[in-house]
Amino acid sequence: MKIGILISGRGSNMQALVKAAAEPDYPAEVAVVISNRPDALGLEYARHVGLPAVTIDHKAYDSREAFERELDRVLRQYGTELICNAGFMRLLTAGFVDAWHDRQINIHPSLLPAYKGLHSHERVLADGVKITGCSVHFVRTAMDAGPIIAQAAVPVLEGDEPGDLAARVLQAEHQLYPHALKLVAEGRARVRDEKVVIDGNDRAAPALFSPLIGARD
Amino acid sequence: MKIGILISGRGSNMQALVKAAAEPDYPAEVAVVISNRPDALGLEYARHVGLPAVTIDHKAYDSREAFERELDRVLRQYGTELICNAGFMRLLTAGFVDAWHDRQINIHPSLLPAYKGLHSHERVLADGVKITGCSVHFVRTAMDAGPIIAQAAVPVLEGDEPGDLAARVLQAEHQLYPHALKLVAEGRARVRDEKVVIDGNDRAAPALFSPLIGARD
Repeated sequence: MKIGILISGRGSNMQALVKAAAEPDYPAEVAVVISNRPDALGLEYARHVGLPAVTIDHKAYDSREAFERELDRVLRQYGTELICNAGFMRLLTAGFVDAWHDRQINIHPSLLPAYKGLHSHERVLADGVKITGCSVHFVRTAMDAGPIIAQAAVPVLEGDEPGDLAARVLQAEHQLYPHALKLVAEGRARVRDEKVVIDGNDRAAPALFSPLIGARD
Repeated sequence: MKIGILISGRGSNMQALVKAAAEPDYPAEVAVVISNRPDALGLEYARHVGLPAVTIDHKAYDSREAFERELDRVLRQYGTELICNAGFMRLLTAGFVDAWHDRQINIHPSLLPAYKGLHSHERVLADGVKITGCSVHFVRTAMDAGPIIAQAAVPVLEGDEPGDLAARVLQAEHQLYPHALKLVAEGRARVRDEKVVIDGNDRAAPALFSPLIGARD
């Protein structure tokens, strides 16, 4: 399955997908990396590893629709079958989202449906929550909504600042995103009634747990 | 620390606390088990293991306040320092809750603040969530609110019905509740700004993860 990855910055999740796709038995290959920001560091990484890296600067377009038409055109030009958002910071219109229905996935740093939107880690810490995580889901028009493909649980530790928690969850994201993409690329993760059903004997596939943490006393 | 356990039914979490408290180095002991229902199976268990088991039938009282006065009296009679709700199905008034402020804890079968209230597992499955869990928290007047002491994460597996998920989460509850009570009884879990701070070097203490499930492919 050919994937197009959308980034806006460093694209560390993009890098995790690129590394996973480099494994010989991985069922997806990266067709193109696209950034809406010309200065995104992830573009350099993509070029460095020999991938097509395209800038589509949203500021150069009169409207969201015009920007998205070009985005759509470039994705199709490279044969994209599935879009993977990886820290892509532009909201997409319903027209674009619907055109890629069930063919666009995103990663969000919380256990959805909890803590949608920005500043998830700050809100987790403000609530005194002890377990958080990350989620990969199909994209719908509502932000951070859409059928959940896989989730990973991550502990909140005493004394965590938002940056500490963000770094710990990001490590889980780098494991979860390739895992979830694999389920989709193999055709094992299918949307039914706006929920994701995982085919196959592996009932545990949708959940990852930190190997680091357990009962200590 | 002397604890009073409130039940309404089988009290499987009560049984888990009783078993934990039977360990010689456990920092809490069960002073009394109280049920608001005379037919609660948990009462038999408590008597069987030699614990005071008291029925305070809420139907025998004219008002919630009268019922709670008797509840309070019996708890104090047995020297209760901390109340542990274990499937206790009566809502308590603000007067009672405030009288036991930071001295009453509860277990709820979800990763709070998500899925408060009844039928958590049904709602988790309806949302297609892949990770759920359970939470032990200090009791406040709002239902299933209050500072979170500890949480455990549990996977939702393909094909789960609510009963399957309830059973799996209940296993985690039986590990989590003794773990959280220990943190409170040792004085390590303290409320500060309506969040729980855990003292000691063990930063991982507030989170438990299922040992069963990890990445499988």
